[in-house]
Amino acid sequence: MLGEPLLEALAEAAEEFLTGVIDAVADIVPAVKPQAACYERLGVSGVAVLRRLIRYAHERDLLVILDAKRNDIQSTAEAYADAYLGQVEAPGAAGAGEAWPVDALTINPYLGSDGVLPFIERAEKFDRGVFVLVRTSNPSSVELQNLLVSAGEEDSWTIADGVARKVDIWGETSVGRCGYSSVGAVLGATFPDEARRFRRLMQRAYFLVPGVGTQGGNVEQLASFFGSDGLGAIVASSRSLIYAYREPRWAGLPFQEATRSATQLLREGVERARAEAANA
Amino acid sequence: MLGEPLLEALAEAAEEFLTGVIDAVADIVPAVKPQAACYERLGVSGVAVLRRLIRYAHERDLLVILDAKRNDIQSTAEAYADAYLGQVEAPGAAGAGEAWPVDALTINPYLGSDGVLPFIERAEKFDRGVFVLVRTSNPSSVELQNLLVSAGEEDSWTIADGVARKVDIWGETSVGRCGYSSVGAVLGATFPDEARRFRRLMQRAYFLVPGVGTQGGNVEQLASFFGSDGLGAIVASSRSLIYAYREPRWAGLPFQEATRSATQLLREGVERARAEAANA
Repeated sequence: MLGEPLLEALAEAAEEFLTGVIDAVADIVPAVKPQAACYERLGVSGVAVLRRLIRYAHERDLLVILDAKRNDIQSTAEAYADAYLGQVEAPGAAGAGEAWPVDALTINPYLGSDGVLPFIERAEKFDRGVFVLVRTSNPSSVELQNLLVSAGEEDSWTIADGVARKVDIWGETSVGRCGYSSVGAVLGATFPDEARRFRRLMQRAYFLVPGVGTQGGNVEQLASFFGSDGLGAIVASSRSLIYAYREPRWAGLPFQEATRSATQLLREGVERARAEAANA
Repeated sequence: MLGEPLLEALAEAAEEFLTGVIDAVADIVPAVKPQAACYERLGVSGVAVLRRLIRYAHERDLLVILDAKRNDIQSTAEAYADAYLGQVEAPGAAGAGEAWPVDALTINPYLGSDGVLPFIERAEKFDRGVFVLVRTSNPSSVELQNLLVSAGEEDSWTIADGVARKVDIWGETSVGRCGYSSVGAVLGATFPDEARRFRRLMQRAYFLVPGVGTQGGNVEQLASFFGSDGLGAIVASSRSLIYAYREPRWAGLPFQEATRSATQLLREGVERARAEAANA
């Protein structure tokens, strides 16, 4: 048990800090995107904090997109989907339990359709969403995702393009009144040159666009992630917002004011990008 | 909170059942492979059970391979690696905490090297291991993993082959005295015809081979997963062992006896495969 009190203390501190972050931005953002790993590293205490923060964000009328990149074979994908997008029933028991009920979940496509469809089924049934990793924001995403597939003469496309085509098909049956489906795609803000091609390949997919800020994505290059309706993308930024108080620019501000100021600035950039997309 | 008592009751039942499974097989298997999703679907109570079962398996001298298929960009992969293969420290605090300390973890390669190396670094530092998904056991694994990559004239290979080559390189620096490294590969028992090629591509990798039993993998076709030393593979079977009491073959036996009998039978098959590989 050596060190378990340390994890509990860290989890307690994280909960206080992140509750403060939610309070600082709840009226100027539509959603929060917790990163599962940051809670898992603090053990059972950490994931208990995640559970409470999901509830707290919902009380503040925020959507919760859990960045957990889950993936597995069909029977196991069903268990993950129950955990995050659906509910758990037991034979003979009244009611159902919800483990970590979030509004959307990121998932990894390496296992193919049968590992993806259970998530999509739960999303459709319970009015949630999924974001499939297509082109991630990290430098080495090129290694696998950008490999060229030869599909006969004159036809070649990258793995990421192939996944994008699948996302488009997987979303066919869940298009809502704004024209977007329950099946979205993760596209790193660090690859703005590719956004237009992906927008064409996945016209009904919402894009989750991480990587602005600390990872190097530029807020002035976001327009091509949006559709011509000025919709279709959620720009996610984590470290550069929650740790804004460490930036020289916001030096001396209490952490909540620093986070709110940085979030406001990003929001203005996103609004410019939306307007640019709508006027293009 | 509706339904949370249901999850707690299910978690309690799971703990009793799975403790019984461990007791039934602890002296005839080297390792257990819990599936993270099955605990996550039972919420905080569920992952608390996982934490206790890891401890219990270690007390029974079993290795624990956590099947969690984690993956993310570098900074987040570090957090996952700390959670499962390393430890968590805090500035100024004495000691370190271990969230879910397992002996090996399955990981997904879709994000490329920078999302994989933090896991390998922790594995090397703390004497643990990773198993990288190469060719998974599910039917649709062909969709992405079997795509042919064109790498110039006359050279083409599948995505799974490409990942296998990476696994071989990633394992170079951690080869132990039996000739195997800390970096293993997941290869489904459902594709025995490909095992020989993968063995050639990854001579120093331990293979984690799931899919025997319920998923259709045949115990009589396992020899080519092993090296000529009769080592190099861990055959994993879950549902067909823990639910053995449901099989007509073991009808009427208490669940622990059914599980033990099924495990013993699988073990004999694995021993035949090892002998066949060593005599080939």
